[in-house]
Amino acid sequence: MKPYPKINAQRLLQRIADFAAIGATPAGGVNRQALSAEDRAARRLLAELAVARGFGIHQDAIANLFIRREGSNPSLPPILIGSHLDSQPTGGRFDGALGTLSAFEVLEALEDAGVVTERSVEVVSWTNEEGSRFSPGCMGSTAFVGAGDVRRWQDMHGADGAKLGDELAATLNALPEAGTQPIGHSVSAFVEVHIEQGPVLERTGVPIGIVTGVQGTKWLEISFIGEAAHAGTTPLEFRKDPMAAAAAAIAHLQLVVMPADPMARLTVGRMTVEPSSVNVIPSRVTFTVDIRHPQEDVLSSIEAQVDAECRASAERHMVDVRIAKRFDLAPGQFDLAIVDMIDNACRMLGVSNMKLVSGAFHDALFVSRVAPTAMIFVPCRDGISHNEAEFVAAENIEIGATVLLETTLALSKEQ
Amino acid sequence: MKPYPKINAQRLLQRIADFAAIGATPAGGVNRQALSAEDRAARRLLAELAVARGFGIHQDAIANLFIRREGSNPSLPPILIGSHLDSQPTGGRFDGALGTLSAFEVLEALEDAGVVTERSVEVVSWTNEEGSRFSPGCMGSTAFVGAGDVRRWQDMHGADGAKLGDELAATLNALPEAGTQPIGHSVSAFVEVHIEQGPVLERTGVPIGIVTGVQGTKWLEISFIGEAAHAGTTPLEFRKDPMAAAAAAIAHLQLVVMPADPMARLTVGRMTVEPSSVNVIPSRVTFTVDIRHPQEDVLSSIEAQVDAECRASAERHMVDVRIAKRFDLAPGQFDLAIVDMIDNACRMLGVSNMKLVSGAFHDALFVSRVAPTAMIFVPCRDGISHNEAEFVAAENIEIGATVLLETTLALSKEQ
Repeated sequence: MKPYPKINAQRLLQRIADFAAIGATPAGGVNRQALSAEDRAARRLLAELAVARGFGIHQDAIANLFIRREGSNPSLPPILIGSHLDSQPTGGRFDGALGTLSAFEVLEALEDAGVVTERSVEVVSWTNEEGSRFSPGCMGSTAFVGAGDVRRWQDMHGADGAKLGDELAATLNALPEAGTQPIGHSVSAFVEVHIEQGPVLERTGVPIGIVTGVQGTKWLEISFIGEAAHAGTTPLEFRKDPMAAAAAAIAHLQLVVMPADPMARLTVGRMTVEPSSVNVIPSRVTFTVDIRHPQEDVLSSIEAQVDAECRASAERHMVDVRIAKRFDLAPGQFDLAIVDMIDNACRMLGVSNMKLVSGAFHDALFVSRVAPTAMIFVPCRDGISHNEAEFVAAENIEIGATVLLETTLALSKEQ
Repeated sequence: MKPYPKINAQRLLQRIADFAAIGATPAGGVNRQALSAEDRAARRLLAELAVARGFGIHQDAIANLFIRREGSNPSLPPILIGSHLDSQPTGGRFDGALGTLSAFEVLEALEDAGVVTERSVEVVSWTNEEGSRFSPGCMGSTAFVGAGDVRRWQDMHGADGAKLGDELAATLNALPEAGTQPIGHSVSAFVEVHIEQGPVLERTGVPIGIVTGVQGTKWLEISFIGEAAHAGTTPLEFRKDPMAAAAAAIAHLQLVVMPADPMARLTVGRMTVEPSSVNVIPSRVTFTVDIRHPQEDVLSSIEAQVDAECRASAERHMVDVRIAKRFDLAPGQFDLAIVDMIDNACRMLGVSNMKLVSGAFHDALFVSRVAPTAMIFVPCRDGISHNEAEFVAAENIEIGATVLLETTLALSKEQ
């Protein structure tokens, strides 16, 4: 009887430490931005580890990297697991790398135990999830599902002046041993392990979040336009104060939107004031509103609520208002059958879990448009992410990888 | 019988145009900052006009410029009238110059009519009222009343890198014909004509504001300090959102402070947000609050109200708050007898007027600490000032100068 496949936690933690050394920052984080020399070094290490275990390696036109362990029926679309290896400029060591290396550990655990799966299992490292060097993020998964035009991106210049086309070519050329594969090959399922990037799991003491979908997001930019005037000489009845209008609208929205719906999110993260003088009533106040909800209809009704409240406040304060939509991403629903499989895996392992909706975007959101998809979240300390202080406890890394392994085995039994 | 003295409106308007040519900006305003070459050119022109009429000219250590028409009893402290000649970098042609040239026109009108006053009448042009090149503003009048130390200012560098001591010496040396006079000589009264720099006179259709005092002003800088977190992944119960706290506090204060007291002013003119990212709950929101009131006790109670509301909002939103006072200027009360004289002058002339409290600081606020003082406001278009678009109608210029002339005559009859 063959041994039952098992995650080697020691090996996985060592891998995470080895990858964290690539682009390591003095504060303990990583700077491994998409298509940079550091990103190429991480891809090279993953490819070498893969080749050493006899796995196949392939790249597509946007440099998504696939590590393939063949199944007994290679003609079936593979099971896809993984995440990304690129980071924010002052990113943490777990965002992306944890999911990619947990997936690679699943592949090694299957290999160690000599498990034969009918479907091949592929680990993917998606290109440019973060979008901090070249915008937009989730570029690799977007291209994979046919929603982005790689040729259109070629001439883009990054924040550091580099041209995407040049950096993409250099990245592809840096792995000459990898096979080339047409973008968007068919897969039977996609499962991504990721840190939660929020506080819910940690604060409720639950090690696994089963992600049932991704919130939809809308970004609004709202300007109130009044009339600059002297703070001392202008009585209330002659004021057209856009700051008073903005504060009233924001205060009202904070009071009504989130308290009424625990799934709703509303955040004002930016505000600029003109002319920005202590003794001058502002002429213009501009701020952003980030709204999120897992249901498209509710998200639209929150947007309408923001719109109506801002217009009402502008009218009350005798100022003008302009509202522009800067970003609009529909919510994504993950696959119920995979969610059930993850749930079953947790039950079998005796691991407590809760259902969550992701508040952040992930490659899985895009892949869910073309294949049954779900995500597994593990807690990160204080919910901190996109930060060098990002931290995940070793036991939760092991639990996350183990749940991914069991889910992969369950998927491999599905026909 | 001697002719009754009369303002020569044509001459006054021409003088205003002549001075507006010194430091003229393409947009029709002036850039004649304190102690600059343009400021010196304006002082030179005023001195030459004075000498041509046989008036005396004197400077003190801070370069306040005095034009003196002798009275029949030169040993009595003179009546002082005037304003300033310096401007904001993109200032208007009336702020300061109107009051200085109206006062000079009064002197010329007295001379034209051969009026003998018992007290001498002096026109003053205070140095550096604006404070835009060298801070603080009202430097000349502050020094005049003994509240500022000229030697301490010498080493100060201006916004353009110039040293105040050098520019002050160059300014004093540019008028070698002027006598030197100890700073802070005794005066019997001070009356300043100025544009309102607010909308009240224009919008109520009244040409003269009799200023009974100057509002006290306090500037507070308030920081709400929360915790940066992801806009999508952080539910309401885990948020420590300083923007929500700031908006609630500002909205509440706007609802309660000014509506309850028509003399109160509350303005939030600046706000900065950190880290200022559309999808990140801010870690810190800092804003300024400018509060004004003519009564010291009420001003202090508004300050206490701002303090209490900010602390309450911080507590409700589970964030910290820090409140710092950046500026604190007590209200000033003008002299009731001079206010009555201006009122009588208006009645005699059939000029409608209203009592006003100045919302802006003026040299008169400082002079009022050492001598009976009042101000005469004239309307400016749309209340616009500190702006190249500043405009005063010719008829109001004539009315303002005429009221100043009558008030000066009334003061000269007082013993």
